Amino acid sequence: MRKVDLKTLARLVEGEIVGDCDIEIHGFAPIETAGEGEMTFLVKANRLEPLLNTKASAVLVPLSIEKAERTVVRVRDPYLASAIIHTYLLAEPFAAEGVHATADIGKDCVLPDQVTIAPKVVIGDRVHLGQRVMIGAGTVIGNDVEIGDDTILKANVTIENGCRLGKRVIVHPGVVIGSDGYGYAVDEKGCHIKRPQVGIVRIDDDVEIGANTCIDRATYGVTWIKSGTKIDNLAQIAHNVVIGENSLIVAQVGLAGSTTLGRNVVLGGKASVKGHVHLDDGVMVAACGGVHQNLPKGAVVGGAPAIPVRQWAKAVAVFAKLPEMARDVKQLRKDIKEIRKINEE
Amino acid sequence: MRKVDLKTLARLVEGEIVGDCDIEIHGFAPIETAGEGEMTFLVKANRLEPLLNTKASAVLVPLSIEKAERTVVRVRDPYLASAIIHTYLLAEPFAAEGVHATADIGKDCVLPDQVTIAPKVVIGDRVHLGQRVMIGAGTVIGNDVEIGDDTILKANVTIENGCRLGKRVIVHPGVVIGSDGYGYAVDEKGCHIKRPQVGIVRIDDDVEIGANTCIDRATYGVTWIKSGTKIDNLAQIAHNVVIGENSLIVAQVGLAGSTTLGRNVVLGGKASVKGHVHLDDGVMVAACGGVHQNLPKGAVVGGAPAIPVRQWAKAVAVFAKLPEMARDVKQLRKDIKEIRKINEE
Amino acid sequence: MRKVDLKTLARLVEGEIVGDCDIEIHGFAPIETAGEGEMTFLVKANRLEPLLNTKASAVLVPLSIEKAERTVVRVRDPYLASAIIHTYLLAEPFAAEGVHATADIGKDCVLPDQVTIAPKVVIGDRVHLGQRVMIGAGTVIGNDVEIGDDTILKANVTIENGCRLGKRVIVHPGVVIGSDGYGYAVDEKGCHIKRPQVGIVRIDDDVEIGANTCIDRATYGVTWIKSGTKIDNLAQIAHNVVIGENSLIVAQVGLAGSTTLGRNVVLGGKASVKGHVHLDDGVMVAACGGVHQNLPKGAVVGGAPAIPVRQWAKAVAVFAKLPEMARDVKQLRKDIKEIRKINEE
Repeated sequence: MRKVDLKTLARLVEGEIVGDCDIEIHGFAPIETAGEGEMTFLVKANRLEPLLNTKASAVLVPLSIEKAERTVVRVRDPYLASAIIHTYLLAEPFAAEGVHATADIGKDCVLPDQVTIAPKVVIGDRVHLGQRVMIGAGTVIGNDVEIGDDTILKANVTIENGCRLGKRVIVHPGVVIGSDGYGYAVDEKGCHIKRPQVGIVRIDDDVEIGANTCIDRATYGVTWIKSGTKIDNLAQIAHNVVIGENSLIVAQVGLAGSTTLGRNVVLGGKASVKGHVHLDDGVMVAACGGVHQNLPKGAVVGGAPAIPVRQWAKAVAVFAKLPEMARDVKQLRKDIKEIRKINEE
Repeated sequence: MRKVDLKTLARLVEGEIVGDCDIEIHGFAPIETAGEGEMTFLVKANRLEPLLNTKASAVLVPLSIEKAERTVVRVRDPYLASAIIHTYLLAEPFAAEGVHATADIGKDCVLPDQVTIAPKVVIGDRVHLGQRVMIGAGTVIGNDVEIGDDTILKANVTIENGCRLGKRVIVHPGVVIGSDGYGYAVDEKGCHIKRPQVGIVRIDDDVEIGANTCIDRATYGVTWIKSGTKIDNLAQIAHNVVIGENSLIVAQVGLAGSTTLGRNVVLGGKASVKGHVHLDDGVMVAACGGVHQNLPKGAVVGGAPAIPVRQWAKAVAVFAKLPEMARDVKQLRKDIKEIRKINEE
Repeated sequence: MRKVDLKTLARLVEGEIVGDCDIEIHGFAPIETAGEGEMTFLVKANRLEPLLNTKASAVLVPLSIEKAERTVVRVRDPYLASAIIHTYLLAEPFAAEGVHATADIGKDCVLPDQVTIAPKVVIGDRVHLGQRVMIGAGTVIGNDVEIGDDTILKANVTIENGCRLGKRVIVHPGVVIGSDGYGYAVDEKGCHIKRPQVGIVRIDDDVEIGANTCIDRATYGVTWIKSGTKIDNLAQIAHNVVIGENSLIVAQVGLAGSTTLGRNVVLGGKASVKGHVHLDDGVMVAACGGVHQNLPKGAVVGGAPAIPVRQWAKAVAVFAKLPEMARDVKQLRKDIKEIRKINEE
């Protein structure tokens, strides 16, 4: 890690140093394990004990803390500031290693001078790579693929023909981009006739895609992941899905064909969305939720089929007591019968 | 794409041309984007506007449309016809590229003259490949594997020892066929002792398997996917599962060990089926459904545990109102108490 | 398979031979298909027909069977004994094939003389391999990885920088170990800022990991799978998860960040656990269950959100009848109204 003076780091996050301004920082670690020369962070002002006991040389703290017995940097959001500073400390100039001798590059490709292509990579024909692209070992790229500057493909990734990735995209191992969408017509005998899948996948800038996630190409047109969206591991993105900017798609989510999401949508782990529906900006779906219909801006839902999350939380609480409720209803029916009998007498 | 005269295309789908019979078609696209020389299709007769506005040279229409201001081809099922014609237009004669210099082929393999084996493919010993087989870059095939004519394995696929694939099978990137089933015995100390998994996987003709799907080998005997079945991405098929002909297994489905499906079964996305049960021909399970028991021919179920889908639809509607119902029941108990009190007075 | 005399096999499982002690066994198969010279097993004493009809030369039976018309080996747990004996019969001495000419090994690695490294393997710098390690074709190992004796990595696996695997670990194809955890901070504009993920994954002895499963590295520290735990296919293990000894994690399970499991925990297929909770020793979660809170030792739960499994079983039974119950409650309200009216008259 680099050695950086505290003033520079504080400036990066618009923080105010209270204590020794002349420290140099060469590491970043959690508050319990950080040592001399390292920086750390405290998210909640109501847990002061770690702040007293840490051996870190400087601590990012929320504004509600005015000073401490050690050097602190007061910031609006210590969690955010920690991400920015840790990333800054880790940053290294791109060291281009070029194309490894065992990589296989097709015809008419455009490769800039600043790339790192690992052993056993296979690249098709007419592929364009941006500056400082890194491609991990065993990754396979089809024909006519475009990849923007500073994008990183890890090991054993597969990108199929014609797909387009933007800048600063990170693709983790085992990801498949551009496999055929799941589309069939049924003939008179009940056989499934494959529909050609001739669209592509388009991934915009600053997208991250988790390990073994699959993104199918469009039947026609594009399956499109817009800028800043972060997808976790083992997610399934079907043909013609569109995901808006800065959305979060947590692990094992499934999005069926032609579904569209607005911006800043959050889908919890294992959530799923039916095909051909639209979730508007800022929609949140709780983990394991199953959405079957369009949802308006800002809707927060849970359960399968998904309903407003508060209603769902109340309903599941009653669900657990259903056996008692069934007994109550049975008893009530007896009571009514008895009352009627008495009344009749 | 090829250039084909309209009469040939109409004959392929038993369609009747109304309009100009002498057109040549060289492309296929959706009705909104199709241009001159391209063909398209209209599924529903009640949406005529796109038919009026399209720039396509010919439109596949349902029989309920008798004529239009442009050339149409009347067919029983325009969706099916579009799949057949689009596929026909895209078809190209197989151009064998042979075995790439960087592929690694084992001993005693049988390779026909017409194959395309991409860079970095690794093939074990005694492997038999059919005519016109295509194997994508980075794919690994174990020993004693058999692969039928016209089968396509995309990139980074793994087929383990002894598995058998039929003709015209399509296997998408990252698929694993023939990994060990998940089977253990427990010893006195609570340790899990691995049971040998010595069976194979058998995939019949015309099966398609989506990206990163896993199909485990049988403990003994075969895990068997029968002809015409289409499996989507990220599905889990456990050891000794048997899937009947022409079934549809949508993304992220999980089938536990020794479960058997009849023909034309449809499992919606993320559905799961317990081990050792049988779903008979034509069973349908709604997305996210969880099946815990045998299901008879034609059963349509939803929910987890799955119940008949209509019953499930009604039950989930009540579920959302459970908090109100709980309040009602509470109120009813109060009412009864009050009535009794009055009656006693 | 090896040829072994029955006495040796019986001794392995502390079994008592009743019948011919001098047989030699050269195979193991299910009771229906086993033939001459092969051994088999019968789990349940109440199904005697297969025991009468089998052509196997010897049968492992439970202690409740005292003798039979053929040679039997009486053991406490025939299922466990079958795993031990079948494994023994299959065992072969390790035949080191060395490093394949097309494998790519980095700088300063420590490779013992007894290893088998398949074609197209890529290994980074400073990697340490134990004795008798086998690495399948197309597998990629990052820098500074340590792998213990007798560990097997199948084909197309990815192990990222710094991860540590113990002895006798089995990793199936397509597994990704050490990909970045899913961690972001949000800035003022709603953009997600990646938090560096600088921890590792540690896998202890005798762990097995199913095809295409993903285990993310820790943000700081370790994501840790303890000894004897068996993970099925397509599971998602997030950053900083800790799984105790001898646990079973069935296919498509999802564990969110920083969750910890005790020993001998069993998570059924597709179960999921929220982040930052603890499931104590021996907890069992039914298939598809969703756990949202800490669970004490031995808890057995089902449903999502998960509740005690018996309560859940009763609640789902009532759930299916909710429409009738809603009708009943409506009727009860009418009845009360009517009774009150009569009372008032």
